[in-house]
Amino acid sequence: MRKIHVNASTEYDVLIGEGLIDKSGELTAKVVKPCRCLIVTDDTVDGLYGDRVQISFTYAGFETRRFAFPAGEASKNLSTLSDILNAMGAYGLSRSDLIVALGGGVVGDIAGFAAAIYTRGMRFVQIPTTLLAAVDSSVGGKTAVDMPFGKNMVGAFHQPRLVITDTDVLRDLPPLQLSNGAAEAVKCGVLNDPELFALLEGGDWLDRVDEVVARCVAYKRDVVAGDEFDTGNRALLNLGHTFGHAIEQLSGFTVLHGQAVGVGMVMAASAAGCPGAMIRRLSDCLRRNGLPVRCDYDAPALARAALSDKKRAGANITLVLPVRIGSCCLKKVPVTELPAWFERALAAQEALKL
Amino acid sequence: MRKIHVNASTEYDVLIGEGLIDKSGELTAKVVKPCRCLIVTDDTVDGLYGDRVQISFTYAGFETRRFAFPAGEASKNLSTLSDILNAMGAYGLSRSDLIVALGGGVVGDIAGFAAAIYTRGMRFVQIPTTLLAAVDSSVGGKTAVDMPFGKNMVGAFHQPRLVITDTDVLRDLPPLQLSNGAAEAVKCGVLNDPELFALLEGGDWLDRVDEVVARCVAYKRDVVAGDEFDTGNRALLNLGHTFGHAIEQLSGFTVLHGQAVGVGMVMAASAAGCPGAMIRRLSDCLRRNGLPVRCDYDAPALARAALSDKKRAGANITLVLPVRIGSCCLKKVPVTELPAWFERALAAQEALKL
Repeated sequence: MRKIHVNASTEYDVLIGEGLIDKSGELTAKVVKPCRCLIVTDDTVDGLYGDRVQISFTYAGFETRRFAFPAGEASKNLSTLSDILNAMGAYGLSRSDLIVALGGGVVGDIAGFAAAIYTRGMRFVQIPTTLLAAVDSSVGGKTAVDMPFGKNMVGAFHQPRLVITDTDVLRDLPPLQLSNGAAEAVKCGVLNDPELFALLEGGDWLDRVDEVVARCVAYKRDVVAGDEFDTGNRALLNLGHTFGHAIEQLSGFTVLHGQAVGVGMVMAASAAGCPGAMIRRLSDCLRRNGLPVRCDYDAPALARAALSDKKRAGANITLVLPVRIGSCCLKKVPVTELPAWFERALAAQEALKL
Repeated sequence: MRKIHVNASTEYDVLIGEGLIDKSGELTAKVVKPCRCLIVTDDTVDGLYGDRVQISFTYAGFETRRFAFPAGEASKNLSTLSDILNAMGAYGLSRSDLIVALGGGVVGDIAGFAAAIYTRGMRFVQIPTTLLAAVDSSVGGKTAVDMPFGKNMVGAFHQPRLVITDTDVLRDLPPLQLSNGAAEAVKCGVLNDPELFALLEGGDWLDRVDEVVARCVAYKRDVVAGDEFDTGNRALLNLGHTFGHAIEQLSGFTVLHGQAVGVGMVMAASAAGCPGAMIRRLSDCLRRNGLPVRCDYDAPALARAALSDKKRAGANITLVLPVRIGSCCLKKVPVTELPAWFERALAAQEALKL
């Protein structure tokens, strides 16, 4: 089992290893004295792992109950949040009790947000069951719901007390879910870690998924530690996201987050004027991991969609631009120039026949 | 104009003086660079002060818009919160824009909570228009909404950037609103400030309302500074609240918060075994300020209502017990003993013929 210590406003460990689902209660009891605990999950994950997690927590001395909502991004809204909060109230949870978020990014984001605001903040433990959640959303303390006017527009910074990632669960994921998470791992490689990138471009890394997760988590930990409340360098983690969010939005969210971020990274590298060989290497790595690399929307539509993003602060937008595999930089550009950045990315896509 | 500096996780000033409503934009511009600003208020306050505040902010260089919801505690729920958040989204606010909470405790709590979670936290300014909000809820950073299972059960800690209290507005309040706020001022006197208590028991203090507000704010500032996230001595501010919340709840919230806290303080003093003379002095002070002092519910019902309070952490409950006018202490008691505490309070009420 790998252990990565995160030193945010609340300190906690990220545990990564085989068979941890069945030890989740016991591992949690080492950091949270047994109390009442509500396991929040979605109906898909509930069917797969709900019983095993509940048994583990009960065995470790927790009083447990489960709440499952319909799986899918469409559930990540104020209405589901209200249902979760009412389930917490019906169970009579106090601020010294515990929420366990069992599932992918949607579950982690919304259950974490519920924990952040119930009695103005109670403890929660994350058990990510997707690669995307394991490498990305389970670290950093960002919780949120979507609003009609934008994704993740309402939320809180709230750190978990423990993150438990079972690599057996990750190995059982369907290919589409794996590639969705692989995109964020590739992102960490491009941002900071050429060795991780090399491992991922090899393709056959599933037997080393613990190393992939650990490298991503350690990198994200370091970035977040320097900028917990997202006012500076944490923006680096948005590599591929300004371009990617625009694609997600234009697709009506039928394009998965990881797929969109993959295309977004290629666009960012293209718009930044990276050498063709580097852009091809990035594209090949993404394709090898089952990800698309081409954008079929036009620049004005992309720019409009990107500007509805909350990260826009006034007249400028901060882009994350690759310099080479393993290094990126931030560049603040006037929002009026955004269409030109998209044009440049699309032109490179045509020139390189991606 | 009096200025009280608060040194919480975010530093800010509380300004108290005559005619500040019409200078609110100008005063805010000294701490927040003019930006987009949504003035959130209720329909009653909007009719009285909405135009004046909006004109002041516009004149100071802010781009302004107003959103008013129906006045009353019944609006303090997730549905109104959703309406406010959607109005913020429709206006296109970013995390570097501003919310102005113009109104009483309900407006401050819900608009502050909206500011706390929109884009995971944006700035807000409080303009309290009731005495209760001026002396209590506008300081300390607690924001919240009510849930079907309890008051203030969902919220966040989020400090304002500035609090602007116009004493002319307070002097124009109807008597019931004034006495509702006076109860919290009496509470500060009982907790810490015999001089403030003496001023309030004299009755005629409306021409010195700036001093009353300033003393309450300074005391609350000191308590909150030592315990921003409410894990220790901040519990002192709950004097009268365990007993009072039970009364509010049993009345279906037809009893105002201040009235309930007033009765709650008398009950706390009685249950603590304070001398009859002290209990009478407290009762006389409350009556002089238009507040009731008698509870007509029975002990088992009160205990049941009190135990639905979120401040209950497991098997014990922390009571705030007066020692004398100007000093109180905390006492953790098993929840099983709570009915006996209520019995003792009710017995003293009969013995003293309150």
